Amino acid sequence: MTVFDLPAVRALVEAALAEDVGRGDLTTQLTVPPELPGRAAIVAKQEGVLAGAPLVDMVFAALGAPVRVTHHVEDGSTFTLGATLMSLDGRAADLLIGERTALNFLQQLSGVATLTRRYVDALQGTKARVIDTRKTTPGLRVLEKYAVRKGGGRNHRFGLDDGILIKDNHIAAAGGIAAAVRAARRGAPHTAAIEVECVTLEQVDEALASAADAILLDNMSVEQIAAAVRRIGLCAVIEASGGVSLTTIRAIADTGVDLISVGALTHSAPAIDLSMKIEA
Amino acid sequence: MTVFDLPAVRALVEAALAEDVGRGDLTTQLTVPPELPGRAAIVAKQEGVLAGAPLVDMVFAALGAPVRVTHHVEDGSTFTLGATLMSLDGRAADLLIGERTALNFLQQLSGVATLTRRYVDALQGTKARVIDTRKTTPGLRVLEKYAVRKGGGRNHRFGLDDGILIKDNHIAAAGGIAAAVRAARRGAPHTAAIEVECVTLEQVDEALASAADAILLDNMSVEQIAAAVRRIGLCAVIEASGGVSLTTIRAIADTGVDLISVGALTHSAPAIDLSMKIEA
Amino acid sequence: MTVFDLPAVRALVEAALAEDVGRGDLTTQLTVPPELPGRAAIVAKQEGVLAGAPLVDMVFAALGAPVRVTHHVEDGSTFTLGATLMSLDGRAADLLIGERTALNFLQQLSGVATLTRRYVDALQGTKARVIDTRKTTPGLRVLEKYAVRKGGGRNHRFGLDDGILIKDNHIAAAGGIAAAVRAARRGAPHTAAIEVECVTLEQVDEALASAADAILLDNMSVEQIAAAVRRIGLCAVIEASGGVSLTTIRAIADTGVDLISVGALTHSAPAIDLSMKIEA
Amino acid sequence: MTVFDLPAVRALVEAALAEDVGRGDLTTQLTVPPELPGRAAIVAKQEGVLAGAPLVDMVFAALGAPVRVTHHVEDGSTFTLGATLMSLDGRAADLLIGERTALNFLQQLSGVATLTRRYVDALQGTKARVIDTRKTTPGLRVLEKYAVRKGGGRNHRFGLDDGILIKDNHIAAAGGIAAAVRAARRGAPHTAAIEVECVTLEQVDEALASAADAILLDNMSVEQIAAAVRRIGLCAVIEASGGVSLTTIRAIADTGVDLISVGALTHSAPAIDLSMKIEA
Amino acid sequence: MTVFDLPAVRALVEAALAEDVGRGDLTTQLTVPPELPGRAAIVAKQEGVLAGAPLVDMVFAALGAPVRVTHHVEDGSTFTLGATLMSLDGRAADLLIGERTALNFLQQLSGVATLTRRYVDALQGTKARVIDTRKTTPGLRVLEKYAVRKGGGRNHRFGLDDGILIKDNHIAAAGGIAAAVRAARRGAPHTAAIEVECVTLEQVDEALASAADAILLDNMSVEQIAAAVRRIGLCAVIEASGGVSLTTIRAIADTGVDLISVGALTHSAPAIDLSMKIEA
Amino acid sequence: MTVFDLPAVRALVEAALAEDVGRGDLTTQLTVPPELPGRAAIVAKQEGVLAGAPLVDMVFAALGAPVRVTHHVEDGSTFTLGATLMSLDGRAADLLIGERTALNFLQQLSGVATLTRRYVDALQGTKARVIDTRKTTPGLRVLEKYAVRKGGGRNHRFGLDDGILIKDNHIAAAGGIAAAVRAARRGAPHTAAIEVECVTLEQVDEALASAADAILLDNMSVEQIAAAVRRIGLCAVIEASGGVSLTTIRAIADTGVDLISVGALTHSAPAIDLSMKIEA
Repeated sequence: MTVFDLPAVRALVEAALAEDVGRGDLTTQLTVPPELPGRAAIVAKQEGVLAGAPLVDMVFAALGAPVRVTHHVEDGSTFTLGATLMSLDGRAADLLIGERTALNFLQQLSGVATLTRRYVDALQGTKARVIDTRKTTPGLRVLEKYAVRKGGGRNHRFGLDDGILIKDNHIAAAGGIAAAVRAARRGAPHTAAIEVECVTLEQVDEALASAADAILLDNMSVEQIAAAVRRIGLCAVIEASGGVSLTTIRAIADTGVDLISVGALTHSAPAIDLSMKIEA
Repeated sequence: MTVFDLPAVRALVEAALAEDVGRGDLTTQLTVPPELPGRAAIVAKQEGVLAGAPLVDMVFAALGAPVRVTHHVEDGSTFTLGATLMSLDGRAADLLIGERTALNFLQQLSGVATLTRRYVDALQGTKARVIDTRKTTPGLRVLEKYAVRKGGGRNHRFGLDDGILIKDNHIAAAGGIAAAVRAARRGAPHTAAIEVECVTLEQVDEALASAADAILLDNMSVEQIAAAVRRIGLCAVIEASGGVSLTTIRAIADTGVDLISVGALTHSAPAIDLSMKIEA
Repeated sequence: MTVFDLPAVRALVEAALAEDVGRGDLTTQLTVPPELPGRAAIVAKQEGVLAGAPLVDMVFAALGAPVRVTHHVEDGSTFTLGATLMSLDGRAADLLIGERTALNFLQQLSGVATLTRRYVDALQGTKARVIDTRKTTPGLRVLEKYAVRKGGGRNHRFGLDDGILIKDNHIAAAGGIAAAVRAARRGAPHTAAIEVECVTLEQVDEALASAADAILLDNMSVEQIAAAVRRIGLCAVIEASGGVSLTTIRAIADTGVDLISVGALTHSAPAIDLSMKIEA
Repeated sequence: MTVFDLPAVRALVEAALAEDVGRGDLTTQLTVPPELPGRAAIVAKQEGVLAGAPLVDMVFAALGAPVRVTHHVEDGSTFTLGATLMSLDGRAADLLIGERTALNFLQQLSGVATLTRRYVDALQGTKARVIDTRKTTPGLRVLEKYAVRKGGGRNHRFGLDDGILIKDNHIAAAGGIAAAVRAARRGAPHTAAIEVECVTLEQVDEALASAADAILLDNMSVEQIAAAVRRIGLCAVIEASGGVSLTTIRAIADTGVDLISVGALTHSAPAIDLSMKIEA
Repeated sequence: MTVFDLPAVRALVEAALAEDVGRGDLTTQLTVPPELPGRAAIVAKQEGVLAGAPLVDMVFAALGAPVRVTHHVEDGSTFTLGATLMSLDGRAADLLIGERTALNFLQQLSGVATLTRRYVDALQGTKARVIDTRKTTPGLRVLEKYAVRKGGGRNHRFGLDDGILIKDNHIAAAGGIAAAVRAARRGAPHTAAIEVECVTLEQVDEALASAADAILLDNMSVEQIAAAVRRIGLCAVIEASGGVSLTTIRAIADTGVDLISVGALTHSAPAIDLSMKIEA
Repeated sequence: MTVFDLPAVRALVEAALAEDVGRGDLTTQLTVPPELPGRAAIVAKQEGVLAGAPLVDMVFAALGAPVRVTHHVEDGSTFTLGATLMSLDGRAADLLIGERTALNFLQQLSGVATLTRRYVDALQGTKARVIDTRKTTPGLRVLEKYAVRKGGGRNHRFGLDDGILIKDNHIAAAGGIAAAVRAARRGAPHTAAIEVECVTLEQVDEALASAADAILLDNMSVEQIAAAVRRIGLCAVIEASGGVSLTTIRAIADTGVDLISVGALTHSAPAIDLSMKIEA
């Protein structure tokens, strides 16, 4: 069982097809003989890291189309301009109907994996790991987080329910960091670790005193981060976030943080240009 | 009735909440008193064009959360860095639970509207209109096409079922442009116009001879486009596509084409940075 | 991929079974041994044109019933009284459980195809084509429009979103035919043709002047239609509608219109009488 | 709680809207100002019996459209040509978008109620009641059976799970009428009555001997029916079916049967012609 | 077609998996090689009667997991402590992911079957049958009623729509037992039998006089029940209910009632302890 | 936002109603005037702890029934035999239709809360907390875990995706406890704590050495548990499980463990007997 077997992913594939195919492909139905065989290749028009290849199989399956997909590159691998990522055999009409939906998935997820890989490469030689955020495209979270993994990144929590992240408003409402951590520890499943978001070194001290499992240093300068890292030592997992870019991430990593979270991985990765060449 | 009343949009809002909220917001449930009132503001951290504001209301409604949203900027309007886009009144816990889902929608769609506006501005003074493509994020097509309209762009067909676009594979399967157009004209509802994708001037001539309603000039040089425009005159709507960027679009428009389609509007628009400030 | 692969059609098959089978077939479960093999034939009790045969396979598949269906007549073909349309092999219990749902689909859609064929035959030798309307049975539109095609008719637009049809209220709200057509032309995808509904010859002139792609002559007398056809010539597709019956359609066709739309094809076609003979 | 509150009915209303509205009403969005108020009347273009009026409210509610519907005729009442069945107040655009879906429901269900009423009238003065069958339009069963009731008819069982009807194949598989009835009596909830379909008087005798609660006389001549009625007396409910028409039903009723089932009520009722007059 | 083919059952299996698997099994994904083969056995940790075995196959199918299940005990059979109920072959990861959901179904339904069997055994030698009620676990009714059958019990009606059961409030609202029965007889499908709930012998007399098909003696003492049985004789099916336990049921049966309904069968059956032993 | 606003809970309420109401309440429709007002009270027929009260409101809302529910006891409170838990005002017919579904939810969840409270009381004065497991009724997990909280218990993880629990098969597949913990730590979100299931003291030592966050002592004797507690000290959260009952739990708690998990809370809690008294 993989991420592609999740009901939400199957439902998304069907929704994506529904919005493209609607009541049927008028053009293809009227111009292409239904049983005409066809072959196709998905070709890279720029280099990148692949993610989402199994979705191509799923798109054609959801169409009720007997298309055989042969994968030449697997998710997580890099490809060069001009590479053939996969070959497809089936009816020409089916290939034409599923083409755009399949490519839309592949282009977006490979975009995420490719951008992630660039961040991962920028951290080479440091102990820091790049992680994603909850700033994902509505409806695509588990897929985009999968693409982050395929790019070499690591995942932050998947949602509001699978981890504790205490932010400024929680702290204010609970009456301070100590009270908030205590409430969380008392009420949450013991399988959930507790992270506290801090914007000052004083807060870091409070979070340490409350025995938080992880500390998120938000929007701090590199100097502040370095100071925080010294105070925390091994007493908590250290995450840095806020305004991280490919030009700034290395300096942040060099402070010794464990994790650097980057929203852009999922909310601003440009699509990778791919095309499907069909021989009708 | 607006795009936001479509069942697919309501379902997407619910899916987006489901993937973020999961079985409930552990942190908020444990640290924020359920009835504590709260106010919040959605603030722009960069300038842009707004799109998707009604989704914020929908997100909180889907949560069963009595949040009142006061809109200060409406969809399609520009905003500057620091602008307050909307104010929210409700329970602090509800604001915290819906925050990320609401922002994810707003950031992505405003990104599309903002990028579209830049293309539209680049065409100022020409008769050409920028239009979108089917290269949209899976599940978000009607919303992204709405954002294109709010950015000042115009929509191409919404799917495979609401228009005829005859491409190379259709032409090959049907036995030529004339045969393909004839088959389409005979079988399609008379409310569907017929467009033919051409990559050579010879194909343009064939498309004209077959009385196509529109001609798509794909991946042609500016010179080729200009030549095609001269041949077509007023006999068909003229669309240009392929590798269009902000630096090349003006020259294409100056050839006299009617429409220029740009996939990047929807597949590569970076998110606009917005944040929700909550006063618990 | 065919109309039967559309998610809405699969969902309808399941809904139809759900409403008939409910919590299970009490009678069959209690009187028929579950593994008893059975053969069945679907037999015509009157002549007609078949439509919907693949739904029979779908009904049994949705039941999880391993029934093999051998088709002797294909959709769009005529059959005579007594003809065996298909043979079914499976478990007797499954055949009994799926029988009514399968027949209900087949009877209704064959009714539509059969009535359409009568209209098509009435137009023999004219250039006019009979087309359907949006007056379809709730939930069955794509199937009934498919049945119209199998009867030899042609489809009007499928819904409010895949074509422009400007009617009296649109004209009034927009401030006249010219204004309405202009607004539609400016805002609609260029793949949508524009049709204007006219009830007077003056309106026909206005629609022509506004360069509408098609003109719908609604509820006009044959004389008025003939006059309109003379004015329009080849400048627009001409559709006639309103009170068309098998006795009046020929005279309308003889005026030279291109299309004649008939609501009765889908809203008042009587079911074709079919029965399933099961040899338990 | 009424039939209109059933989840399946709400789902059908949404499916019906989805198939008509699709991605939105292009024409109305482009030609009608969104806030323009409108009034409309649903008017009868022929006489009949109304059924389905609450669905009009549901259609507009499902559109998210604030339309107020004032009902002038209630379900089950007769109306004459030209009668105004209901008045609607709202936005003109909403009225135009929901018009066709609302009318499609109303026309079909009023067709069923009207045809049923004619059968009911034909039985005036006899003790026989006209009942429907499971030969209903896929997806519309509970609504069509509701329309039958509004026409004055009575319902047979709603599906395979809410009653026992032993037919020829069940008899054969179970090893005779006595064995089939015994198996059903032993296994079915005691709230389910047991009916046996008989085509000969010998079978009627067997059914009586097995203490069936009801006997269905299928495709018998009026003479046979009369003979069966004499044998059965008050020992079982007596239903007649098969080839019943408005011209034959009276003679069947005069034999003294309790119930006469007529498939045509639901599978072949022509739509009642209704129109919505909108004042934009 | 069996109960397991019902759409509601398939949906329940998917919902049960969704609530357990969520966004994926973190532990297994990170510690078990995805293709590592595995074998497992489901073993009884106490004796009982099996029900729900086909759900195990369904759970793994819904996971998209190619697991082969070999059944050693079939639904309705008894098993002893230590018995291997079924063997499973597949990928170790899949077995681990589906384990809990499969067992949760099996434990609950076998609990119902096992408790039912104890009641059935207690009635040995009497003509009374134990039947279930509508006091079932929300969402599991058809499965729990199936388990009751596998335990040897019989089903009462499945819901409010497949039988008539007139209770005190219905009687009061209708104006007495006679009026209520008359209204039900007139309006209900003739395939529905009519049962009247009585709490006094006077009501029993009224119910008899109104020709009810069945009489439910609710919360009567054994003496009252015996008196009622004498009055009713063979004129109606006799059901007893109210506070029935394993210690009291025999005495009730000895009065000569036909049916004894026991809510505890479904609302209070303790789960049977089963475990899955996996050899990774 | 509460657990009752989760889409899965709303869907379960609808499924529960659908399985009970089906195509409508035959008896009530035929015997109770639709507009007859009614009042009802939900009364306890035994003492207990309430859980699920908001579901009563949801049941009637889902019916489209305007019923006003006044709550006299809130979730988590104890009630005595005879207590009126809530009063309901609405139409008598609606009260009758929703009665059983509302009670089924309330009885089952109050059963869980009541049993949990008994375990909680048994731990009075110790530091141990009783927690639930994943052995929940299919489809009801978030509700049953809510009921455990209302009973005073605490929740273990909600599913396979919101925590790491390394069991024997994971250990074997990963090549030992150290390797398994390392793999989990490397790949899981840092917000997930890591628990290791141990059956021997040697495993406890290994788990400690691998820096697991929590240790689950499975099926150990009280003596073994005590020894494990001494070794672990404050280095990990300590959970005990396996064959825990009301008679054994106190001794386990006295060893000093933090958490004791009890499957019976959710899989074997008998329903609490409640009834709805309706005054039509």
